[in-house]
Amino acid sequence: MTQSDRINRQWILAERPVGEPDDNTLRLVEAPIPAPDQNEMLLRAEYLSLDPYMRGRMSAAKSYADPVEIGEVMVGGTVSRVESSNVKGFAPGDWVLNYGGWQDYSVSDGVGVTNLGPDPAQPSWALGILGMPGFTAWAGLTQIGQPKPGETIVVAAATGPVGATVGQIGKILGCRVVGIAGGPEKCAYAVDMLGFDACVDHKQEDLPQALAAAVPDGIDVYFENVGGRVFDAVLPLLNTFARIPVCGLIAQYNATDLPPGPDRLGLLTGTILTRQLTVRGFIIFDSFAELYPEFARQMTGWIAEGKIQYREEVIDGLAKAPTALIGLLRGENFGKRVIRMSGNND
Amino acid sequence: MTQSDRINRQWILAERPVGEPDDNTLRLVEAPIPAPDQNEMLLRAEYLSLDPYMRGRMSAAKSYADPVEIGEVMVGGTVSRVESSNVKGFAPGDWVLNYGGWQDYSVSDGVGVTNLGPDPAQPSWALGILGMPGFTAWAGLTQIGQPKPGETIVVAAATGPVGATVGQIGKILGCRVVGIAGGPEKCAYAVDMLGFDACVDHKQEDLPQALAAAVPDGIDVYFENVGGRVFDAVLPLLNTFARIPVCGLIAQYNATDLPPGPDRLGLLTGTILTRQLTVRGFIIFDSFAELYPEFARQMTGWIAEGKIQYREEVIDGLAKAPTALIGLLRGENFGKRVIRMSGNND
Repeated sequence: MTQSDRINRQWILAERPVGEPDDNTLRLVEAPIPAPDQNEMLLRAEYLSLDPYMRGRMSAAKSYADPVEIGEVMVGGTVSRVESSNVKGFAPGDWVLNYGGWQDYSVSDGVGVTNLGPDPAQPSWALGILGMPGFTAWAGLTQIGQPKPGETIVVAAATGPVGATVGQIGKILGCRVVGIAGGPEKCAYAVDMLGFDACVDHKQEDLPQALAAAVPDGIDVYFENVGGRVFDAVLPLLNTFARIPVCGLIAQYNATDLPPGPDRLGLLTGTILTRQLTVRGFIIFDSFAELYPEFARQMTGWIAEGKIQYREEVIDGLAKAPTALIGLLRGENFGKRVIRMSGNND
Repeated sequence: MTQSDRINRQWILAERPVGEPDDNTLRLVEAPIPAPDQNEMLLRAEYLSLDPYMRGRMSAAKSYADPVEIGEVMVGGTVSRVESSNVKGFAPGDWVLNYGGWQDYSVSDGVGVTNLGPDPAQPSWALGILGMPGFTAWAGLTQIGQPKPGETIVVAAATGPVGATVGQIGKILGCRVVGIAGGPEKCAYAVDMLGFDACVDHKQEDLPQALAAAVPDGIDVYFENVGGRVFDAVLPLLNTFARIPVCGLIAQYNATDLPPGPDRLGLLTGTILTRQLTVRGFIIFDSFAELYPEFARQMTGWIAEGKIQYREEVIDGLAKAPTALIGLLRGENFGKRVIRMSGNND
């Protein structure tokens, strides 16, 4: 047993970021491995998920959920293995999906923990295509977007775990799918590998015109996960009765002040009225938890049939998690970004 | 037969208003009485409805519907009587609801015309509580707002034909109802006559604080018919999963430019996301036409049971219609504003 096996490395929230998180936001500390109680099990994290929502949890304002307090371990979804167990239904060696946070070890009484069995094919996929991001894409598109064959769907962050899934489901449902992504490499991937009909590079200067050219019949469903200037380009192209599931606004998370300029709040409400739009925000497990089994069944089937591609970006080492999250918020990831804890002795 | 019986007075759109309509926007002209074809009937208007949506039809931009062209008769809902008829199901003397526009006479083949019979109790109510405004209130509240007993509903223009109906239906459904209206007289009417639980005067300086005090449990349904600073006051008070039917934005109709200041478009999308709001715009007959019979049956029953109060403001004379519409857009009306055509020899 090496030194790192006997300690519990933890990233704790050291201070609340103003704007983009930096080196002072989180601090790496070492704690003893927690001892499970008689109704608990000890879990050792193998993969830590990095997700845009984490930025919100660093702020004092209540957003999706309660903020992480200063000095607390940063929250996050993990895929772990059971080290020892006093919980019925969980045996040592089992893989589980849990919310262990940014640390090696956690204890749990089993509530909210999903057992993935002793030998899952792709354990880390429970953090992506088969977990929260995949479920977010599926539920937002099918329940709020309600696309009909032949309609046009637009989704940004098109190669991210949510956007890529939205687009591929849209194609399965017979729609025209247009992605928005950062740079030619991601755009080529969206079209060539994911099967999007078109993909627009948001780094180009004339995003509004390029997007308009890609949606000759307008936009029927805009899956909103970025906000900012992408939303500005989408707004004038929305068709009457268009639907906008709002699951994220990554372009706005690091904003410190409202930008100066003409106040377009009324422009949005005016467009909602005259185009008879439906705009609905959702936090996946708040709004649609009861649909998870239906999602899991359908998505597992699509993956088995080869209808869904999934790209993961595995980064070795818990030490790199803060830098990797900052990059994620900048759009530097290409696919679903996860930390592999075991590559951690650096 | 007097002189005024042999001519057809018409208000035509003379120029498109910039900001508030004025004396040059509409022009009164005299035309011959139209001759019905062999499949048509001649209708003579008794009442002309004045409604906020009319401002939108004066603009060149496509809003709800195609704009009125320069030189065309201004559009509007009317209650008319059949003068002569070649249309099956319509006899001379019948009262009808039609879209005759701002003129004495029109011809129709019967499409889109509702026969109210030879002796309706309150013919002009077809322009209000039993027509478009009442149906807008009912459908927006029940289909989009979906209030549950004990929830809090907020509606502005609380003594107008839509707002007053929204609030009274909310009370029938067991909700707490808070109105917003202009001035103490209207607020007293909303509480004392319409049965609202509270009503906040939007002319007072500290609208946000007064509204917050009136909704101790937050807002579950905000029926949006005004926009502007009322919406600003509502936004921070919305509960998680709140619903916002958007049927009008009267405070924004005369706006010529987007107001300067911090751009709060992102604030709205952020609130939609974190509070998981549903915001849906609707134009009543586009979105819910198939529900009209259900509305008419239920509303007729409520009126018969004395559960719904309805206030009408009848203004005599077609000549006064433009001034009356300008006043309506300023919020000077108290109840549903209609023009009685027969009081027209001034």
